[in-house]
Amino acid sequence: MTTAARTALRLDASVHHERIQRAAAEAAERSVDALLITPSPDYAYLLGYHAPALERLTCLIVPAEGDPVLLLPRLEEPLARHALGELVEEIHLVPWDETDDPIRLVQTIVAGSLRVGLQDQMWARFALRLRAALDPAELVEAGPTMSALRRIKSPEEVDRLRAAALAADAAMRTIIGERLSGRTEADVSRHVRDLLVAEGHDTAGFAIVASGPNSASPHHEAGERVIESGDAIVIDIGGTRAGYCSDTSRTAFVGAPDPEFAALYAVLREAQAAACEAVRPGVACSEIDDVARGIIGEAGYGEAFIHRTGHGIGMETHEEPYIVASNQEPLRAGHAFSVEPGIYIRDRWGARIEDIVVCTDAGGERLNTTSTELAIVE
Amino acid sequence: MTTAARTALRLDASVHHERIQRAAAEAAERSVDALLITPSPDYAYLLGYHAPALERLTCLIVPAEGDPVLLLPRLEEPLARHALGELVEEIHLVPWDETDDPIRLVQTIVAGSLRVGLQDQMWARFALRLRAALDPAELVEAGPTMSALRRIKSPEEVDRLRAAALAADAAMRTIIGERLSGRTEADVSRHVRDLLVAEGHDTAGFAIVASGPNSASPHHEAGERVIESGDAIVIDIGGTRAGYCSDTSRTAFVGAPDPEFAALYAVLREAQAAACEAVRPGVACSEIDDVARGIIGEAGYGEAFIHRTGHGIGMETHEEPYIVASNQEPLRAGHAFSVEPGIYIRDRWGARIEDIVVCTDAGGERLNTTSTELAIVE
Repeated sequence: MTTAARTALRLDASVHHERIQRAAAEAAERSVDALLITPSPDYAYLLGYHAPALERLTCLIVPAEGDPVLLLPRLEEPLARHALGELVEEIHLVPWDETDDPIRLVQTIVAGSLRVGLQDQMWARFALRLRAALDPAELVEAGPTMSALRRIKSPEEVDRLRAAALAADAAMRTIIGERLSGRTEADVSRHVRDLLVAEGHDTAGFAIVASGPNSASPHHEAGERVIESGDAIVIDIGGTRAGYCSDTSRTAFVGAPDPEFAALYAVLREAQAAACEAVRPGVACSEIDDVARGIIGEAGYGEAFIHRTGHGIGMETHEEPYIVASNQEPLRAGHAFSVEPGIYIRDRWGARIEDIVVCTDAGGERLNTTSTELAIVE
Repeated sequence: MTTAARTALRLDASVHHERIQRAAAEAAERSVDALLITPSPDYAYLLGYHAPALERLTCLIVPAEGDPVLLLPRLEEPLARHALGELVEEIHLVPWDETDDPIRLVQTIVAGSLRVGLQDQMWARFALRLRAALDPAELVEAGPTMSALRRIKSPEEVDRLRAAALAADAAMRTIIGERLSGRTEADVSRHVRDLLVAEGHDTAGFAIVASGPNSASPHHEAGERVIESGDAIVIDIGGTRAGYCSDTSRTAFVGAPDPEFAALYAVLREAQAAACEAVRPGVACSEIDDVARGIIGEAGYGEAFIHRTGHGIGMETHEEPYIVASNQEPLRAGHAFSVEPGIYIRDRWGARIEDIVVCTDAGGERLNTTSTELAIVE
């Protein structure tokens, strides 16, 4: 990661100050005495820069009461001081040396805590060592606390998601305007990755190009298959721009669409549009899923819609809230997530349409702007 | 990651079969009844492909006795079947649906286990849920078991490390042959990343370019500082080629070296060479560290050598064995690691020399081939 990409998400020190304060307050509300935040999107959200997740423990300790402490390997200290900027004045830095035991240092810092929250993606090796060192404190997931903050996007965050979406749209428009038959999926995928960066992403994240029977595999890896006439192609692309993610899918058909595929696609398009339309504060995530699943099921494709309708998006491609049957959580203004139903007929073909939608008081706002019509390509 | 990069490390199915069997045997030896291996280098080492680490649990379950089970989200199943190739015949695939609870499925599969090993980088959210679900089983780190396999490189693995090292050397030779003054660190760093790929890496991992006072920060991020005459520059670069990592550092000086810096560098070079020379089976990792630290300390720079001497390398840039004072483990033939002492004078300058060394029965073999003399650049 370049310096620019690593610190692109740094906002004014006051914003990070406020986020840390809110994290402490949310922890207190859950009777969590301290949060242990290892390098991750949570860490970057709070501190404004990405630290590497390494075998050497770096850990931001946010107590429910008191000042935050950043425990880090001594050789990471200069970089951290530089990356933190003004924020460094309100965080107590504790550098540790190569022969120190950082777990003991955590133990000392959180001594007396009854419940300690571990960052969701903290490595199990640290979680298990902390389990032993912090006994009898209860260890819980810090996810709900951090997600309480991160799931509601500020207007500035929505702007960043929109900019990322538009960059992905530009790449998508280019790719579905090109001749695809005769090229391998892998070739097209590499080209998409270049386009994602050329259109303003700091990094290309993924570029699924699934053609012919491969389009029936939702997470297909672009491979050596040569695209040919009569193929359905699912193109699912995304990257990161200024710390925020894009993720959009469109489906193309090489040549005149097979009527059976066109019929399937019409059902999918109706389902995706209806699910987007259903977005508004107070509607449960499960209901959005239900709207899409209902239309697809009624048309007889229920068994072929093998994944949830969507996932939250922000600093991570997948985050809360998940648009899945089991999630009764009501949507709120500021939630941002994908709406991406798909229909997959194994060994034959598949289709998916994916937009990022932000819930606003006025309903759902689609951040993606490309047409959802079936793209006819050569 | 492209398909090619993702599966570049797939070897003959018999190799992966044998690795899984050895993992089971190593687990049994440690009284671990089952290993839970989530997507990670360990997962790729066993199965020959990288699966994404996601909020949806993918987990290879290797029981000490019995057949391995691969639990995975249903939408990842086609990709896994494709990536596993022949190996799929000896692994029981258990796909789970969006509304299933994968933790319950793990619970069922490992029922009756007394000790269960968690992959080192497994996300804490899964570790904590497993902790609750598998109670009263003891959860332990799978790291020692997996590392027992991975720390000894096969001849084929050493070949891959050598090919990666040579690719990094080619990039290093190019960069220290160029005019560097007048360019920003970030510019040079971007160029190095391009060179790493051009010379055969699948991905560029990092390209530290730390100039002037920044060279005193071991993990400095290349930034907007313009390189100028009289600067020391630490260049530390690496990437991944066919699943294995490169990592090499050289130090350059812009223009005629300051005599004080030249003296410091001569000490460093002697220390690095002596540490490489000391490598042979039976010597403790700590002794290698001690050799380098002794020479640097005797010359009066002890306080300025602020990190360990090295780290193991393989499918990860940092892995076992660590060349650090606290590690009494004896070296064995097949261990591969960096030897990279450094001397850092805060706010002034720093230097580091890093080679990858493989321990063989005949002593240490350096995989890097560029000169360790101080590079004089314009």
